[in-house]
Amino acid sequence: MKAEIITVGTELLLGQIVDTNSTYLSKKLAEIGIDLFFKTTVGDNKERLKQALLIAENRADVIILTGGLGPTVDDITREAISEFTGKNLIFKNDILLRIDEYFKNRNIIMPECNKIQAYIPDGAIIIENKVGTAPGFIIEHNSKIIIAMPGVPSEMIPMMENTVIPYLIQKEGYLRSVIKSKVIKVTGLPESEVNDKIKDLFENLTNPTIGVLAHQTEIEVRITAKAENEKIADELIKDVKKKIYERLNENIFAEDNETLEEKVAEILFEKKLTVAVAESCTSGLLAFRLTKISGSSSYFMGGVNVYSNFAKYEILNVNKETLEKYGAVSEKCAGELAINVRKKFKTDIGISITGIAGPSGGTKEKPVGLVFSCIDIKDKINLYKYNFAGAREVVRARAAQMVLFNLYKLLKGSI
Amino acid sequence: MKAEIITVGTELLLGQIVDTNSTYLSKKLAEIGIDLFFKTTVGDNKERLKQALLIAENRADVIILTGGLGPTVDDITREAISEFTGKNLIFKNDILLRIDEYFKNRNIIMPECNKIQAYIPDGAIIIENKVGTAPGFIIEHNSKIIIAMPGVPSEMIPMMENTVIPYLIQKEGYLRSVIKSKVIKVTGLPESEVNDKIKDLFENLTNPTIGVLAHQTEIEVRITAKAENEKIADELIKDVKKKIYERLNENIFAEDNETLEEKVAEILFEKKLTVAVAESCTSGLLAFRLTKISGSSSYFMGGVNVYSNFAKYEILNVNKETLEKYGAVSEKCAGELAINVRKKFKTDIGISITGIAGPSGGTKEKPVGLVFSCIDIKDKINLYKYNFAGAREVVRARAAQMVLFNLYKLLKGSI
Repeated sequence: MKAEIITVGTELLLGQIVDTNSTYLSKKLAEIGIDLFFKTTVGDNKERLKQALLIAENRADVIILTGGLGPTVDDITREAISEFTGKNLIFKNDILLRIDEYFKNRNIIMPECNKIQAYIPDGAIIIENKVGTAPGFIIEHNSKIIIAMPGVPSEMIPMMENTVIPYLIQKEGYLRSVIKSKVIKVTGLPESEVNDKIKDLFENLTNPTIGVLAHQTEIEVRITAKAENEKIADELIKDVKKKIYERLNENIFAEDNETLEEKVAEILFEKKLTVAVAESCTSGLLAFRLTKISGSSSYFMGGVNVYSNFAKYEILNVNKETLEKYGAVSEKCAGELAINVRKKFKTDIGISITGIAGPSGGTKEKPVGLVFSCIDIKDKINLYKYNFAGAREVVRARAAQMVLFNLYKLLKGSI
Repeated sequence: MKAEIITVGTELLLGQIVDTNSTYLSKKLAEIGIDLFFKTTVGDNKERLKQALLIAENRADVIILTGGLGPTVDDITREAISEFTGKNLIFKNDILLRIDEYFKNRNIIMPECNKIQAYIPDGAIIIENKVGTAPGFIIEHNSKIIIAMPGVPSEMIPMMENTVIPYLIQKEGYLRSVIKSKVIKVTGLPESEVNDKIKDLFENLTNPTIGVLAHQTEIEVRITAKAENEKIADELIKDVKKKIYERLNENIFAEDNETLEEKVAEILFEKKLTVAVAESCTSGLLAFRLTKISGSSSYFMGGVNVYSNFAKYEILNVNKETLEKYGAVSEKCAGELAINVRKKFKTDIGISITGIAGPSGGTKEKPVGLVFSCIDIKDKINLYKYNFAGAREVVRARAAQMVLFNLYKLLKGSI
């Protein structure tokens, strides 16, 4: 079975946004073993979208579109598909009620133009949108399948996961071969070092394959196997995975869709530990990440944002001498911050971060990127020092990441 | 003149990397006034690339390809173009010498496989690659232009800037028009309402055009004009821009690449005002955003993360009665938090956010998405109440956004 993706939006053709939707969809299709040979991007132009649909229909069995389902005049996907398939747009009262509900929940009267989103092509299967107003839909046409979803990723992704993927899987014959991937998430090493440590493993490997993909604060090592069925694919992956763990064990924190926040929260929940933070250069980023998990109020008590020396001294009682003699960016200051925030919030764990995010504020002795951190777990003091490279946002992101990773490693150990 | 982009690479079809090349190229083409109607992505497959070339040739004058020029077997762009145009691949000794030089400079013996990169289609103009080994090339064929560049962005970008853009500009007739855009950034309104307020402006407008694009916390209204020269394009934009400001003035916070953080920081710097924050449900997000600006330590003093009731009561001294009678998510609690954090940090401005981010924790009286905020500017108290829709992350992002926007509006007013 062959699929084709069409992303719709003039903003994509003007280079105003990066098309991450098609990347996500490509990955999802690969996971369920559907081949993808072409992706096309077209602007908010009905005739050109119909052209693209025609080309796609001639070379694919499933066409997945994103974008152009909004309520405005330049949203042309609904009409283009209706004209292309000859299926009239039908008004659906239950969709309208759901859109109306969406606005009522926000104490807004539904704007007139949103009514257009209650129209879908005759006979289409509705893909419910639980996050926004535009539903998606699936049409079976000329023994081909056309699937339309909105372009906003936070709306499109749950629609793909909850409706489209199960739909595609249940369609007979779609699973003659499966492509399975296992992602191993690594942090605290540069991409080239990760690569050097495992490159001999994938030099002559064709199935599974190994790919290394660097993000801002973490690296994904992806093992991808193609096989007749899941079980065989899993076997192929298992052996390679074991070797990668042997090489990178120290720096692995999660697999697949797991996040570092989840892994940390899991242990905090389980061990019933509480946390407070004192952040300077990251100014809330660590606290924000620690509370990404629903229910985090059972372990996260809060903290003090000590962005200024005033806050460090007056609110968290860092010694005047420490600030004068060693400075705010010092191991000593980091230590006092973690210990004091833990005391003040009466938690099991106190964490501090203090550093120079840049671009200004660096000196020869204390350059931009210098970051100190302390994790106090029940009076056991752990101190860390880093020199991060990169722009202000990169330094802040890496600092929060490494501190969270250190916390994870400590929690996994015997506390 | 119409252009079309073809990005080549199976990794793009497997979703292993995001295609930022085509975004970059789109932007560059728009800047020099070349229309782009389609983008296509194709894998490392010669026959399918030739298919894509045929389709592109039928609807565009310039075809720009990236990727598939490497030294390995799966790099098929050179051969595909050669076969498609009927122009044989010719060995170029000067290219080989340059590739050899590249390796010599790195004390590496040139691998045999790199020799293939010294072949280019007969009659092609060479695009020098100063960063890597693969040269690009330009072919004029059937009065169409085919341009091939490597897929590595650090190699492709200088080739585009130094060779391809000057080449396209000098081609007669290519600069008969320029495309200019002006982005107006709006927040605090749903996309559909923004649309309703301005849709009559663009219903019969063909130049400039108006587009509305929703992001998670802000909406972009984009005016795009096409004209003989920049001055005329600017004039076309100016008139429409004025009208959009009249309609949406209340909700506009920035233009083009400006961010809300920057706009807020600008005024804080100028008026020499200091800020402290007390965050509950957003848990650091507001503080993090307020410190995205380099130099923010001159206005941001820090704050208290009051994620727990313990922190609200013990650290920021919210009245016990307030917490018991009204609850942590209440106007009264928000008010006390802002006033108390301002006092504690001795700042001009105190800001609080307290709400229910969900997905759990909601009740009938206090549903998920309910958020209270207070901004205390020098004893002037401003209270806000919201009901945000969406997932946990969306509620938190919108809450921080609206609070930052409220701060911006207050700062713009007469303080």
